[in-house]
Amino acid sequence: MSIGLDAARTIIAGVREAGANQGLQPLTVVVLDAGGHVLAVEREDGSSNKRFEIAFGKAHGALSLGRGSRALMARAEQQPFFIASVTAAIGGALVPVPGGVLIRGTDGAVLGAVGVTGDTSDNDEIAAVAGIEQAGLAAQVD
Amino acid sequence: MSIGLDAARTIIAGVREAGANQGLQPLTVVVLDAGGHVLAVEREDGSSNKRFEIAFGKAHGALSLGRGSRALMARAEQQPFFIASVTAAIGGALVPVPGGVLIRGTDGAVLGAVGVTGDTSDNDEIAAVAGIEQAGLAAQVD
Amino acid sequence: MSIGLDAARTIIAGVREAGANQGLQPLTVVVLDAGGHVLAVEREDGSSNKRFEIAFGKAHGALSLGRGSRALMARAEQQPFFIASVTAAIGGALVPVPGGVLIRGTDGAVLGAVGVTGDTSDNDEIAAVAGIEQAGLAAQVD
Amino acid sequence: MSIGLDAARTIIAGVREAGANQGLQPLTVVVLDAGGHVLAVEREDGSSNKRFEIAFGKAHGALSLGRGSRALMARAEQQPFFIASVTAAIGGALVPVPGGVLIRGTDGAVLGAVGVTGDTSDNDEIAAVAGIEQAGLAAQVD
Repeated sequence: MSIGLDAARTIIAGVREAGANQGLQPLTVVVLDAGGHVLAVEREDGSSNKRFEIAFGKAHGALSLGRGSRALMARAEQQPFFIASVTAAIGGALVPVPGGVLIRGTDGAVLGAVGVTGDTSDNDEIAAVAGIEQAGLAAQVD
Repeated sequence: MSIGLDAARTIIAGVREAGANQGLQPLTVVVLDAGGHVLAVEREDGSSNKRFEIAFGKAHGALSLGRGSRALMARAEQQPFFIASVTAAIGGALVPVPGGVLIRGTDGAVLGAVGVTGDTSDNDEIAAVAGIEQAGLAAQVD
Repeated sequence: MSIGLDAARTIIAGVREAGANQGLQPLTVVVLDAGGHVLAVEREDGSSNKRFEIAFGKAHGALSLGRGSRALMARAEQQPFFIASVTAAIGGALVPVPGGVLIRGTDGAVLGAVGVTGDTSDNDEIAAVAGIEQAGLAAQVD
Repeated sequence: MSIGLDAARTIIAGVREAGANQGLQPLTVVVLDAGGHVLAVEREDGSSNKRFEIAFGKAHGALSLGRGSRALMARAEQQPFFIASVTAAIGGALVPVPGGVLIRGTDGAVLGAVGVTGDTSDNDEIAAVAGIEQAGLAAQVD
């Protein structure tokens, strides 16, 4: 099972509202379905060119390993060669810093992931969680 | 110059409204800025996994060569080796069938591109044009 | 042996002058040394995004096989699978239509190549030859 | 908005003049538009083969993340895995040492980037800034 486009749009709206309320830098938000495929994206004006690729890499890396991207950062700090090798093995889309958050349903099933980039990684993650919760779903950051 | 996120969202809403009104299959819509970078995406429920990549390839191919993707199809029919070689030269993101449409401003400048996929290529293109025109901009299909 | 930057700049100026005199579309000109490495590039205003990659592919393909890109087009028409396989084998930078022209010295040695794109392939080639001749060197188109 | 070819040529002339005045090693200068696409390149005689790719990577990395490449070096020193992963996510063209400098207009908008390589990274950056300022534009190094 996977979230659909309506939920993805609710999440994006929630992320952007959180960013605006907290005065964050322009954000880029990517929502992926459970299969790791793009459902919806919005890149705010003033973002640099490759923010889609970075947000996608956070969310895609999270789904690839079944952990929020904060956990991937911890692993990168312990075993950088592991994260480097997985990044190559999966084709390059794995960005191991906070801001890639798993979306779980009320029964715990993984329904997709959100990737956010634009401000500090910690703030990106806070906004991602806010968006997921606004859709009535559960967020897993690590 | 390039369109911003608000215009991109208006275009997506217009494309989806056109698809719904005409009973088209689920659509995926990608809007790129003038530099070929993702601004906004929506993939409707029921779409297959890689529809983002296909819609991206239509729009990215159009911006790469400065022609709507219908013109790239005509070139592919005449010189398939040319389109194959350009696809390799630019890294793979060029899908030469209708549905990749350039967005031009009132002064004629290229402001970005829309890529649509999901129904027949001809219908994809009709929906793309409808979305661009709903935003008060001009569409170039070939 | 290879041409140097001064000769490359003379060639680019000559290509652009030929384009302006004949009212061609905006041109992109790439000059490579004998090793196939970039020496100088100019992309005129109004060119689409990936014109550097296309011009590079014409010149790089020519040097890769030791023939002007017009000869590569003839081969692509006869044996498309050969050109497709070479394109993959050399990493993608081979665009087999006219406009990639070898630069030869007075003793016949290959000194580099010019790639031009923006107008029709035939016109691109005419401008490339004009630039090479303006630098007092010999052009090989096939 | 983006700079055009005339401004790009002025910047290259300024970089090379700065290099000559300070007795720097042979320089390669790449100017990209705001979308990260090549506008103009010059590689001085005596440069090694892949200097274009290095200068491109400095400028392209800067535009990808919206920071001068000096800031990317600082991030690489703190979180090498982050820079490694972004490099993979954007397709490889990111060289995180000084010499990739954002070009900003008088209103602060990003208009493109310059990449310089050939001497020490610090000297490459000094020359890049000199070129941008010679064109009456503002340089952002980090």
